[in-house]
Amino acid sequence: MKSLAFALCLLLPLPAFAAGTSSHHDPIASLVLALAIILIAAKLGGDLAVRIGQPAVLGELVAGVFLGNLTLVGLPALAFIRESPLVDSLARLGVLVLLFEIGLESTVKQMLSVGLSAFLVATLGVIAPFVLGAGVGLWLLPEQGWAVHVFLGATLCATSVGITARVLKDLGRSQSQEARIILGAAVIDDVLGLVVLAVVTGAVVSASSAPSFAMSSVLVILAKAAAFLVGSLVLGMLVSRPLFALAARLQARQVLLAVGLAFCFFFAWLADALGLAPIVGAFAAGLVLEEAHDREFVAKGEQTLAELIRPISGFLAPIFFVLMGMTTDLRSFAQPSILVLALALTAAAILGKQVCGLGVLGKGLDRLSVGVGMIPRGEVGLIFANIGLTLMVAGVPVLSRSTYSAIVVMVIVTTLVTPPVLKFTLGRRRPAR
Amino acid sequence: MKSLAFALCLLLPLPAFAAGTSSHHDPIASLVLALAIILIAAKLGGDLAVRIGQPAVLGELVAGVFLGNLTLVGLPALAFIRESPLVDSLARLGVLVLLFEIGLESTVKQMLSVGLSAFLVATLGVIAPFVLGAGVGLWLLPEQGWAVHVFLGATLCATSVGITARVLKDLGRSQSQEARIILGAAVIDDVLGLVVLAVVTGAVVSASSAPSFAMSSVLVILAKAAAFLVGSLVLGMLVSRPLFALAARLQARQVLLAVGLAFCFFFAWLADALGLAPIVGAFAAGLVLEEAHDREFVAKGEQTLAELIRPISGFLAPIFFVLMGMTTDLRSFAQPSILVLALALTAAAILGKQVCGLGVLGKGLDRLSVGVGMIPRGEVGLIFANIGLTLMVAGVPVLSRSTYSAIVVMVIVTTLVTPPVLKFTLGRRRPAR
Repeated sequence: MKSLAFALCLLLPLPAFAAGTSSHHDPIASLVLALAIILIAAKLGGDLAVRIGQPAVLGELVAGVFLGNLTLVGLPALAFIRESPLVDSLARLGVLVLLFEIGLESTVKQMLSVGLSAFLVATLGVIAPFVLGAGVGLWLLPEQGWAVHVFLGATLCATSVGITARVLKDLGRSQSQEARIILGAAVIDDVLGLVVLAVVTGAVVSASSAPSFAMSSVLVILAKAAAFLVGSLVLGMLVSRPLFALAARLQARQVLLAVGLAFCFFFAWLADALGLAPIVGAFAAGLVLEEAHDREFVAKGEQTLAELIRPISGFLAPIFFVLMGMTTDLRSFAQPSILVLALALTAAAILGKQVCGLGVLGKGLDRLSVGVGMIPRGEVGLIFANIGLTLMVAGVPVLSRSTYSAIVVMVIVTTLVTPPVLKFTLGRRRPAR
Repeated sequence: MKSLAFALCLLLPLPAFAAGTSSHHDPIASLVLALAIILIAAKLGGDLAVRIGQPAVLGELVAGVFLGNLTLVGLPALAFIRESPLVDSLARLGVLVLLFEIGLESTVKQMLSVGLSAFLVATLGVIAPFVLGAGVGLWLLPEQGWAVHVFLGATLCATSVGITARVLKDLGRSQSQEARIILGAAVIDDVLGLVVLAVVTGAVVSASSAPSFAMSSVLVILAKAAAFLVGSLVLGMLVSRPLFALAARLQARQVLLAVGLAFCFFFAWLADALGLAPIVGAFAAGLVLEEAHDREFVAKGEQTLAELIRPISGFLAPIFFVLMGMTTDLRSFAQPSILVLALALTAAAILGKQVCGLGVLGKGLDRLSVGVGMIPRGEVGLIFANIGLTLMVAGVPVLSRSTYSAIVVMVIVTTLVTPPVLKFTLGRRRPAR
C-alpha cells in the first residue's frame, strides 16, 4: 500500500506543489455558523420575552441588540454575522416571506368587508402619527432636511398586524368587536403604510436624481403605487385561480409550495421593477392568494400554502429581527439627543394612534382599547427604518445609524407597552362570567 | 400643496442634488426573480419526468441543463442566475438541508440492524465502482493525474438514498426483503461514500499543500473522518436528548424547527472546521436526531421536525439540482472524448454496482434486483462532482468542466435507467395474485 501511495504521489501534477497554504473550507461554513447562532439567540430571546408576557419578536430584537453589542462587555464583535451579505440576503428574504405570510392571512374580500370604521381608524392612524413623527423630526433634527423628517413620519404609520393579532390572541379576545376593528384597520393600515413608504421613498429618490421635483411627481408615484396595488390585486385575482388550477395538475411533489413562492417572488420583483419596495409585491401576492387556491392540493391530502410557508418564515424571519437588533449601536445612547429623539418618537407613536378611537363608529364600543391595540409598531416600522438606512441619497443613507437606533427604541417600547396596557383597558369592561 | 412641495424641495440637503442616476432597486430583486424562474422550471421539469415514469429530480436536472444552455438556441444566457453568489449559497444551503432530511429518515439503530448483507452489499458497491471509475480515468484521461482519477472513482461510489427509496415506493415494493437490503445498504453506502469523499478530498488537499504525502496522511484523514462520524454520533446521541428536552421547555414558537436547524448547521460547521465536507456534518446531525426528540413537541400539538424540514428542503433543494444542471455545458459534448468518457463512466457505474449482488446472504433472494436497485447516482454523486469543480489545486479545479459534464451525463443515465430496469427485474418474480 505504501508503494501505491508513492506511485500516486508521482502522478501528482507538478503545479499542485505550488499551491501553498490552500485550505479546504466550504464558503457556506461561516454562513451556517452565523445561522446557528442567530436561531438559538432568537429562541432564547423569544423565550424570555414570552415568559415576561411580551411578544416573542421583542425577544428576538433584544437578542440581536445583545449580539450586536458584545464588544461593550469585551467579547468578540461577531462581524462575520453583521457584515455577511449572505446573512443580509437571507434576512431580506425572511421579511419578504413574512409579509407574504401576513398577506396570506387576509383576503381582499375581508379587507373590503371590514367597513367604514376600520377604514377611518386606519386612515386617522396613519395621518396623525405621520404628522406627529415628521413634526418631531422638524423639531429635534431641523438640520437634517425633509427626507429624514418624512421618513421618521413614515416609520410611525403602520401598525404591526402580526404583533396586534398575537397580542389579542394571547389575551383570548380575538373574537371581540374591537378586535375585529383593530385587525381590519391593521390590514388597511399596512397597505396605507406601504403606500406611504412608496410615496416617501419615491419622492426621496426622484428628488435626489432629478432636481425638478414637484407635486406632480408625488402624484405620479402615488398613482403608480395605487395602480400597482389595485392592478396587481385585480390581475392577480384573475390570473391566480387558473394558474393554481393548472399547477394542481402537475405531477411533481411540493408544487403548491414552489408555485406559491414563485408567485410571491415574481410579485416582489415586479414591485421593485416598478420602483416600489419588494415587500409591497410580496404582501399583495399574499392578499391575492386565498384558501380556494389550495383546494385541489388539499383534496390530494397535501398541506395548505399557509401551513407550508410557516416553517420557511419560521426559519428566515427571525434572521431579520435578530439582524435588525444587531444594527442597533448602544453607544449612540451616550448622546442625550438620541434619547430625547427616542422618547419624542415614542410619544408621537403612542399619542398618534390614540386619534384612531375617533374613527370608531357605533355605540358602546371601547374606543380606548382600539387606540391602544393600534400602538405596536413591529416588522413594518423596522422595514421602513431599514430602507431608510440603505436608501442612499448622494451616497449618504437617509437615516443615520443613531436615528435608526432611536426608531428601534420606539419599536421596542411600543411593542413592550401594548400587551400590559391592552390587558388593562380590555379588562375594564370584561363581561361578567 | 404645490408650495409645500416647493418648500420641501428647498429643505432638500444640497449634496442630494449631486446623486445623478441613483435608482432605487432592492439588492434581492434579481435574487427573487432567479428563485421564481428556478422553482417554476424545477416543477415543470419534475412534472415531465414523473409523467414519463422517472424521478422528479431528473426533470430538475434536465430543466437546469435547458436553462443553462439557452444561448445555443439564441436566447439570453441567464448569467444573473448562474453567476449569483446568493443563488449559489441558497443551493448549497439546500443540499445541506436535504442531506439533513435524508439523515432524519434513518436512525443510528436502523443502520446497525440492517445486518451483514446490507454491509457487504454497501462495501462491494463502493469498492467496485471506485476501482472501475478510477480505472476509466486512468485509461481515458492518463494525462490528468491521480487526483482526477480518484475523484472520478469517488463520484461513482454512493447510491442515492432518495432516488432509490422513491423508485421502490413508486413501484409499491418498499416492504420487500430486497428493498430492505437495498435501503439499508444505501444508508451505509452514503456514509461510506462520505468517508471516501473525505479521504479523497483530504488526500488531494494535503498532497497539494504538503509534498510529503504518504499513506500515513491518508490514514490520518480516514481516522479523522471515522472519528468525526463515530464521535459526532456518540456525542450527538448523548447531548441531543437533554438539549431537545431543554428546548421543549422554551416558551417561544417554532422552537423545534430552530433548534433542529441550528443543530444541523452547527454539525455542518464543525465538520468543515475539522476539514470534512459540511454535508457530512448535516447528514450525521440528521442520523443522530430521532423521533423521540420530537415527542414533547408533538405532545404539544406541534409538527415533527421531519415535517417542518420538508417545506424548507422543498424550497431550497430544487435550487441545487437546477443550478447543477445549469453548470452542464452542452457544447462540451461536441468533443467525442467527452462522450466516450461519459459512456465509459456510465458503464463503470452500472457494472460496478452489479458486484453488490454477491454480498446478498440467504436463499431465494433476487440478487439481480438488489444490484439494479443500487444503480441510481443522484445528489451525492453531483455533490462530489461539484466539490471537485470548486476544490482548487494550485489554482485549478480538480475536475474540468467537461469532465463534470460527463459525470452529469452518468448521473442522468443511471437515474433514467433504473426505474424501467428495476420494474422489469422485480416483475420477473412478482408473486401470483
